[in-house]
Amino acid sequence: MAKRRVGALFFDGFELLDIFGPLEMFGVLTDHFEIVTVAERRGTFKSAQGPTIAVDRSFADCEKLDVLLVPGGIGTRREVSNPVLIKFLVDRYPELEWLASICTGAGLLARAGLLDGRRATTNKAVFEWPVSQGPKTTWVHAARWVEDGNIVTASGVAAGIDMALALIGKLVGDGIATRVANGTEYDWHRDASWDPFAKLYQRGQTQV
Amino acid sequence: MAKRRVGALFFDGFELLDIFGPLEMFGVLTDHFEIVTVAERRGTFKSAQGPTIAVDRSFADCEKLDVLLVPGGIGTRREVSNPVLIKFLVDRYPELEWLASICTGAGLLARAGLLDGRRATTNKAVFEWPVSQGPKTTWVHAARWVEDGNIVTASGVAAGIDMALALIGKLVGDGIATRVANGTEYDWHRDASWDPFAKLYQRGQTQV
Repeated sequence: MAKRRVGALFFDGFELLDIFGPLEMFGVLTDHFEIVTVAERRGTFKSAQGPTIAVDRSFADCEKLDVLLVPGGIGTRREVSNPVLIKFLVDRYPELEWLASICTGAGLLARAGLLDGRRATTNKAVFEWPVSQGPKTTWVHAARWVEDGNIVTASGVAAGIDMALALIGKLVGDGIATRVANGTEYDWHRDASWDPFAKLYQRGQTQV
Repeated sequence: MAKRRVGALFFDGFELLDIFGPLEMFGVLTDHFEIVTVAERRGTFKSAQGPTIAVDRSFADCEKLDVLLVPGGIGTRREVSNPVLIKFLVDRYPELEWLASICTGAGLLARAGLLDGRRATTNKAVFEWPVSQGPKTTWVHAARWVEDGNIVTASGVAAGIDMALALIGKLVGDGIATRVANGTEYDWHRDASWDPFAKLYQRGQTQV
């Protein structure tokens, strides 16, 4: 079977672990997945934590994607108002087998209208901001990740790793996903309803 | 108090989550830590999983570091024979408050002689390779991470996140480390002896 192409979206101010956690999990399965990095233009983008990524595809020259991963990070607050990025999400959604966001990346999906009429979750510490971007979405506060149709939204940062492993399980089998989790010595939380962090951050609070 | 400077070492074939897990944890604490990326030369380095990092310091022009993080990844098999990289580790060790490796990064520390006479751990799925680089080291098979003096070695990939949080706890306080773990929705394993993966990969086996 042909490899699936997994695209990782970048912009200045992306959150490191949001995207590199899932990319580790997909990326070790070189027989099954090809990873490509994509942004508005080719070149470098600085993470919220400092390190800089060199992106190899622009929106215009990116091949067809099977999976698109959308991270959060402080840069999302600016990118919701970037019509070029929002149009990329809208234009590419029909070609995708799965669209996945991590953390406040859900705010970008919401602003693109892709979460309208769907259930979704996002970061617990800054829950209200993504919620404000998606008034037509049913936001689920206590969830590690939420799947609705072919869109899956993970909670904050590290939750993306659990979501990615669940997605890998669906795409290539649970046994392979388990092998990836064990090989990377990651304590995989397989239950999408497991969320001890929802209790720590009540709705209406905004914390960093 | 002045910020501590945390250096992250890069080379072609580094493992994504080895380094970006710990950098997420240090990197969110912008009041306490400054992150710099360092490699043999400035420019781009391709991870084992595909994505490329743009490194901002060469070995020659990197400022004094307080903490140095050394990832693993398939590139370590080549870098143990790179005298420039090994010399960087040897030369910089005396200036460091803490030296930390993740996964097979321990093989680089071992080859530099920095683990001689010390206890250390490394990746469980490919345990024997780093061990072969450090014949004067007491290798601990069942451990999430091992601390000996001011050198801390983490087990495979995701173990680096637990190690980083423990190190943050030592450097700036347990309360702050807890806040980082909760804010990133990471299920922090605080016990360095917790290691369910050691049982899965018996010594003498080599698996990927």
